[in-house]
Amino acid sequence: MASSKQFDPASGTRDFLAAEYEGRERAFAIIRTVFARYGFQPLQTPAFERLDVLTGKYGDEGDKLIFKILRRGEHEATGEADLALRYDLTVPLARAAAAYGSQLPSPYKRYAIAPVWRADRPGKGRFREFVQCDLDIVGSSSPLSDAEVVVALHDALDALGVPEFRFLVNSRHALFGLLEAYEVPDELGSGALITLDKLDKLSPEAVVSELVSGRGLSRKTAQGLVDDLTAPDSVERVRARLKSSETGQAGLAEVDQLLELTKDTIPAERIGFTPNLVRGLDYYTGVIFEVVAPGVPGSIASGGRYDGLIGRLGGKDSPACGGSLGIERILPLLSQAEETPYAQIEVAVTVMGEEQATDSFRVAAEIRRAGVRTGVYLGSSGKFAKQMKWASDQGARFCVIYGAAEREAGTVTLRDMVSGEQVQVPFDQAAEELSRRCAQSS
Amino acid sequence: MASSKQFDPASGTRDFLAAEYEGRERAFAIIRTVFARYGFQPLQTPAFERLDVLTGKYGDEGDKLIFKILRRGEHEATGEADLALRYDLTVPLARAAAAYGSQLPSPYKRYAIAPVWRADRPGKGRFREFVQCDLDIVGSSSPLSDAEVVVALHDALDALGVPEFRFLVNSRHALFGLLEAYEVPDELGSGALITLDKLDKLSPEAVVSELVSGRGLSRKTAQGLVDDLTAPDSVERVRARLKSSETGQAGLAEVDQLLELTKDTIPAERIGFTPNLVRGLDYYTGVIFEVVAPGVPGSIASGGRYDGLIGRLGGKDSPACGGSLGIERILPLLSQAEETPYAQIEVAVTVMGEEQATDSFRVAAEIRRAGVRTGVYLGSSGKFAKQMKWASDQGARFCVIYGAAEREAGTVTLRDMVSGEQVQVPFDQAAEELSRRCAQSS
Repeated sequence: MASSKQFDPASGTRDFLAAEYEGRERAFAIIRTVFARYGFQPLQTPAFERLDVLTGKYGDEGDKLIFKILRRGEHEATGEADLALRYDLTVPLARAAAAYGSQLPSPYKRYAIAPVWRADRPGKGRFREFVQCDLDIVGSSSPLSDAEVVVALHDALDALGVPEFRFLVNSRHALFGLLEAYEVPDELGSGALITLDKLDKLSPEAVVSELVSGRGLSRKTAQGLVDDLTAPDSVERVRARLKSSETGQAGLAEVDQLLELTKDTIPAERIGFTPNLVRGLDYYTGVIFEVVAPGVPGSIASGGRYDGLIGRLGGKDSPACGGSLGIERILPLLSQAEETPYAQIEVAVTVMGEEQATDSFRVAAEIRRAGVRTGVYLGSSGKFAKQMKWASDQGARFCVIYGAAEREAGTVTLRDMVSGEQVQVPFDQAAEELSRRCAQSS
Repeated sequence: MASSKQFDPASGTRDFLAAEYEGRERAFAIIRTVFARYGFQPLQTPAFERLDVLTGKYGDEGDKLIFKILRRGEHEATGEADLALRYDLTVPLARAAAAYGSQLPSPYKRYAIAPVWRADRPGKGRFREFVQCDLDIVGSSSPLSDAEVVVALHDALDALGVPEFRFLVNSRHALFGLLEAYEVPDELGSGALITLDKLDKLSPEAVVSELVSGRGLSRKTAQGLVDDLTAPDSVERVRARLKSSETGQAGLAEVDQLLELTKDTIPAERIGFTPNLVRGLDYYTGVIFEVVAPGVPGSIASGGRYDGLIGRLGGKDSPACGGSLGIERILPLLSQAEETPYAQIEVAVTVMGEEQATDSFRVAAEIRRAGVRTGVYLGSSGKFAKQMKWASDQGARFCVIYGAAEREAGTVTLRDMVSGEQVQVPFDQAAEELSRRCAQSS
């Protein structure tokens, strides 16, 4: 006996039937429109890359999650892989920037909304195939670029209708400045930041312990840092602390410039300096940000400046910044999409006997040509009740009944599937009449 | 030194930059609109399936072309695969039909426009990642379904603007009837058809030889079959020949019913009975068709009825028919798409010094809110000429100049990038004015 799982999609992947598919596509279309309005342009790269393009770019943990593709033909037996599914959209961007550099505008502002694949342990809300939604600016070190990424993401979230969200903004320079103010030796800095990044998950005491025992900071320094970053007046305390560090001052200036540039376009309650925002990835070099929303663990968007990364990934060394919408987390926040049942067609055309079939087909073609989604009954039953049930199951608003009587009279009967009301209309006017009625009732 | 190929996409795959990407997406959108108008609904399945879902479904040759995904973690060293990239959209349809059967409308009319992957030897116009564009009706044995598939494909080709094309229609029953009329033993039938399918590539003599030496037919039978199928009056000859075969009569009736049902919607010169159309795949059971276009080798669309396939592929045994647009072959026929250069933005906003940056940002936001694609200069140069060059390179129709003088006066300068003409507009009216001008000039 076949198990009930036999026809499920592979673990961690999903099938999308019509209603869900269209809800997702609607969201993607909104995002695309916003990004295009900023002059970002689409880039589509293949689902797989040569294995060497991907390996060594995501750290040891990341490398383990890459789906590798077995060599083919006589080489299959080696058990070796030569290709791999893309793990993100950033490495393919770096490869494309290297491949098409001179053909691309400068700066190159690109967006990509596409699936990526990671062999993560599947779990609630965690998938092995999921869509990333990235926008990046390669080749500009201007603070206007950071601001543009932030504002474009803001507009996208706003256009999607995410009810409440807030940009948390910091700078890697501010973080390093804070460490400098506490005289943390340079070589302990990155490790200390990785631990400080856990302040949203661990208790302040636990973070202090880890800074001392795991990262080699003195207890006094560790306590001072954690106090600064968890105090209710953290913003003011950190601002004051950074006065003693040149790097810290530069970081604050980056944050302030971003806030200044976006002040006319992002409401003040939706954005703010957040000294304890760290971002795990160590490739960020300047402004960093995350977007949080009530009730959603983690962030719904994030990004920052990552000068140097494009070069490390194989491209020409270029300043760059970018951001990403966590679209799989955002979609569940957009509740309205699935409330109305999926209506496959607006108009259903019956087929009452073979003699009428060609005419039924013709009238359906005319209605479609008027832009109305129209289905013809494809079952084998000539029974009226059965065809009405089909029309109703399809979500049709109107039904065209065309039997021997109508054929004789050169008419069709239009039935309003909601009111049940029926009217006779000349055959040649059916399309126009239905187009008018559908426009009215939508 | 890096070789120039180092940054190319993997062999047989392609990157799509903005202009090409958007040309493709425009075509897909047209197709989607047509299919939806017929009440077909989208189904999206994952890029990969469990390996056992795919293997054994495409024949030995097909199985060799499946991209297999290596197991992960501790199992990677086994060199075994457990997943594979989808090879087509039909097997995933069969799996989904089995998984969601009762949730799906009946008949289930679905379309899918999505990439598939085949480890074919890459060549001119042959790719390892390419888009398939399928529509299928599962659960209806009505001839109306075959006709609907054909008409929907016709409308899609028409809507795409394919200048000239023709549907070649036949039925597997007509083919088997012809073999019956020539008293070819049943067990030689399928082999004989595979050879007859080569009439478009080999000479009639070569096909006769192969039928005799390779397929075990008598020379007289082989010659008779080839004469019937290559004669200028082939249609009439085959119609006459099929009189002696019940199967053949049934096949002719299928073809004639399709031609009758589509006569009001497909111009007569675009469709016709084609006795020598065979279609290689042996899963077809009824009407079969291909669409040919001048100058394109092979077909640009094809399909037919395949009543047992869904069951064989793992689904509930259901009647089914469908068709597919060879979209990678069709796209090059649609010439107009790439003639106009890709314009990234409509309006370019200059940034003349840091003091003006926030205001430049604000005016850009207002113009975007009016629906106009707008870019802000993100370079580091304050030089006017450099910013004008950027605006021009981006394809901007208008440029907003906002320097110290404009700031003082509360205005912006609008420059028409074609005529070079400049006008002063109050800052707050810039967005409205540009929205008006862009609408006029487009």
